[in-house]
Amino acid sequence: MEKPMSGSFLRNCWYVAAEAGEVTRTPLSRLLLGEPVVLYRRADGTPVALEDRCCHRRAPLSKGKVIGDRLQCGYHGFTFDASGACVAIPGQDRVPPNLGVRGYPMVERYNYLWIWMGDAAKADAARIPDFSRAADPAWTTVHDRLPIAAHYQLMVENLIDLSHLAFVHAKTIGTDDTRTVLRFDRGDDFVRVVREPIEVDTAPHNRKQGMGPRCRLEKTIDFAPPSQVVIDIRTTEVAPQKNDPVSLGITVLNACTPETESSTHYFWTSARDYQRDDKQLDAFLYKVTVEAFNEDRDMLEAQQRCIALDPGAPTVSVNADGGSVQMRRLMAELVEREQGRAAAAAH
Amino acid sequence: MEKPMSGSFLRNCWYVAAEAGEVTRTPLSRLLLGEPVVLYRRADGTPVALEDRCCHRRAPLSKGKVIGDRLQCGYHGFTFDASGACVAIPGQDRVPPNLGVRGYPMVERYNYLWIWMGDAAKADAARIPDFSRAADPAWTTVHDRLPIAAHYQLMVENLIDLSHLAFVHAKTIGTDDTRTVLRFDRGDDFVRVVREPIEVDTAPHNRKQGMGPRCRLEKTIDFAPPSQVVIDIRTTEVAPQKNDPVSLGITVLNACTPETESSTHYFWTSARDYQRDDKQLDAFLYKVTVEAFNEDRDMLEAQQRCIALDPGAPTVSVNADGGSVQMRRLMAELVEREQGRAAAAAH
Amino acid sequence: MEKPMSGSFLRNCWYVAAEAGEVTRTPLSRLLLGEPVVLYRRADGTPVALEDRCCHRRAPLSKGKVIGDRLQCGYHGFTFDASGACVAIPGQDRVPPNLGVRGYPMVERYNYLWIWMGDAAKADAARIPDFSRAADPAWTTVHDRLPIAAHYQLMVENLIDLSHLAFVHAKTIGTDDTRTVLRFDRGDDFVRVVREPIEVDTAPHNRKQGMGPRCRLEKTIDFAPPSQVVIDIRTTEVAPQKNDPVSLGITVLNACTPETESSTHYFWTSARDYQRDDKQLDAFLYKVTVEAFNEDRDMLEAQQRCIALDPGAPTVSVNADGGSVQMRRLMAELVEREQGRAAAAAH
Repeated sequence: MEKPMSGSFLRNCWYVAAEAGEVTRTPLSRLLLGEPVVLYRRADGTPVALEDRCCHRRAPLSKGKVIGDRLQCGYHGFTFDASGACVAIPGQDRVPPNLGVRGYPMVERYNYLWIWMGDAAKADAARIPDFSRAADPAWTTVHDRLPIAAHYQLMVENLIDLSHLAFVHAKTIGTDDTRTVLRFDRGDDFVRVVREPIEVDTAPHNRKQGMGPRCRLEKTIDFAPPSQVVIDIRTTEVAPQKNDPVSLGITVLNACTPETESSTHYFWTSARDYQRDDKQLDAFLYKVTVEAFNEDRDMLEAQQRCIALDPGAPTVSVNADGGSVQMRRLMAELVEREQGRAAAAAH
Repeated sequence: MEKPMSGSFLRNCWYVAAEAGEVTRTPLSRLLLGEPVVLYRRADGTPVALEDRCCHRRAPLSKGKVIGDRLQCGYHGFTFDASGACVAIPGQDRVPPNLGVRGYPMVERYNYLWIWMGDAAKADAARIPDFSRAADPAWTTVHDRLPIAAHYQLMVENLIDLSHLAFVHAKTIGTDDTRTVLRFDRGDDFVRVVREPIEVDTAPHNRKQGMGPRCRLEKTIDFAPPSQVVIDIRTTEVAPQKNDPVSLGITVLNACTPETESSTHYFWTSARDYQRDDKQLDAFLYKVTVEAFNEDRDMLEAQQRCIALDPGAPTVSVNADGGSVQMRRLMAELVEREQGRAAAAAH
Repeated sequence: MEKPMSGSFLRNCWYVAAEAGEVTRTPLSRLLLGEPVVLYRRADGTPVALEDRCCHRRAPLSKGKVIGDRLQCGYHGFTFDASGACVAIPGQDRVPPNLGVRGYPMVERYNYLWIWMGDAAKADAARIPDFSRAADPAWTTVHDRLPIAAHYQLMVENLIDLSHLAFVHAKTIGTDDTRTVLRFDRGDDFVRVVREPIEVDTAPHNRKQGMGPRCRLEKTIDFAPPSQVVIDIRTTEVAPQKNDPVSLGITVLNACTPETESSTHYFWTSARDYQRDDKQLDAFLYKVTVEAFNEDRDMLEAQQRCIALDPGAPTVSVNADGGSVQMRRLMAELVEREQGRAAAAAH
């Protein structure tokens, strides 16, 4: 039931398939990496991810129903267990051996459901990126999912980049980050962009948090393959005389899961460590964030349409693109290594 | 004016092109087997089927108008007789010989217009399948046409199959037919599925017809190439002492005509031999039938979308699929034979 | 920044890109010959046409803003001058040499903006076809732009042709021109269709202009490559005794600019030399013309859909098609000559 790896996507890795709350006892269909996947929960709540295509007549299983831990096709009643094995066929007592649909390893963590779409034997939950702030009781979150009609790397690139803030978000959250100093770092499985801390006058709304007149702004952006980006923003009052200066943190956790070669399920959580019970602030941050991400989406979808007109049109990279260049290079290496191995294994 | 046969469709056979009532003196455009066809009636009512593409500048003739027995193109006035021959060109007296559009043999029978899209010389009205109950004065009918965005064989398969009733139609007409015994029969030009008769308690609404407490249910499904299916359902009271037991028949006549490789014009007629003047029953049966066929359509269109994602994904067949396996095998043989002959004839 | 010429379009020639009034200080995106183009005006009003795709990350520049004479990308702020050269990159002082987007020669003339999408070195404003009546103070105009989902040559052919008037426009402006005598003339860069003048009874509304009971109708149609058509219609009273017979002229100036291989930006201006200050007549002529062109559009789009079903389906030409046959022949020669040269130059 394993399909050969193909296409341009990295497969031996974890993708966010859904927000935890999206998946229930009613099957949910979702196209991931171009493949139809059905998601549901067992009686005990464990999430299940199966190929959303019955092995009998290729009806989507998501049109069926969950019975106990099993999923029954809505067309002719073929029934599958949580591993994807076919366990019942109406009208006959015997089920042919090895009949079933593909099952995908799935882990629920940090309020997300993570799916492994490559070689199941290699699935290792320890490799799920650290999204702990999405579920840390010391942090308060707002979160959502946004469909974007653009290649997932366009969104990853957007998240890694600071230079677009002054332009795309000029009317909302835009700040001129084009003259700040960036450091880029890269390892085997990460790219990091660190903006040199800057000292600025404290914004009025932060003065209300008890912050002094000057503050230090820090921003770190961590990319983890294949498509996760954690943005950490910290504002700390400059008060050398204080032992415990006021310090406010916002962490935005992003997962850009490919739907197809030209569309993305974009999952985001914005977590903060201050005013944690302020529901009005929740609503405000949700609204501001959605507005900003819609500005990004609007630009990315225009960019995607422009690329589609002439997929071979060249690009150039400049200083500010250090993070995105590293990200693309790292991903290309990982895909090449994976597909090279797969090709070698096929011999 | 004959085009070479191509594609996966059987061509030397009859397809339903329209319900008789759909075609009038106003031209009607219909895509059949991927080809544009225009349908209209001559002054005496005889139906005509022509290529819906003017030989001059490829405008659809269906945008023109019928004058006497002829069809005049709405763009530049080229005029064609009922055989497709061009008979008039505005602005000149001479019409080049052999100029025209393709004409298709067409027969009106059983309230349907049947079209032959292969070699016209082979068109033989005797090969039109027996849909007589659609026009038998001893039977009353309701009927309609339903567009389905799925390959026609998915609908044929659905009609031949009993095992989906309990699932797709669970909320409407569903009965559990998954444990009944089926016999399959096949000849050179038919597939037959016979459900072993079963004896059941008479349903309350049939008791009202004067039926005794027990009845016998019979169901026969006849497939005729390329895409006609006749379903015969008979309910007879079990009354050995009676000479003339109450017996109620419903025959559903189905024609699944390919529009394209992934869409179908589905024509159905439901005929009955009881309560024949009951208009309320007409309305009820129409409503119930449309509801059920829309349930099928919904499933078939989902199935088609799933197939389109990965056209090579495999299927498996089980006991209940005997009829559909035979249907696919018979059609593959007929298409292969036809195309083999066509290829041989081309040498 | 020059791309190799390709596709079926003639490139070394002028196309209408926009009506003059459409282009302002706010960038306008337009797809021309399948290429994304952004149009805007410099501070002094000069129109500019650039590739609508940033060289950085392929965002459309039309989503950016005009600053002085320059266009700034709305994604990361790359800025281009009116030639397409990149002159500023946020976050760095240096701009790499030769960085930029393609700039297209553009000329504003006759209330239209003309673009040259081939070899810029060959752009010669003297080759812009004579559309002077669209901006002649002695003539009054109504004009508009109509998007048509059909290949531009279908519309050119429609404009050159008189034989469709009696059919497509039977309910509006249709006159039976199918029996009139046509003369065709062709040179290296034009095709001309002249209808032999005919003498008819003066129409009532022309009597009101002081015209006598009989008048002479003249019609000349001039095609200029790649896709301009000027239709000149003159009605003159037959009054040999008068030195200055009443004579009314209408000139329709048409430009059919390819958007893609199957869609067209159709620009038209209807100019007249009589009742020049009659606003009610303006409104009437605008309405009548739009109605007639929508009838054409409806037919052309049906024709395009029909062609798309079987692009290889043949056509035939008859006497009345003399103009369109010459037009297609001339265009094929020009394209072949241009692409032959381009191919030779590549060696």
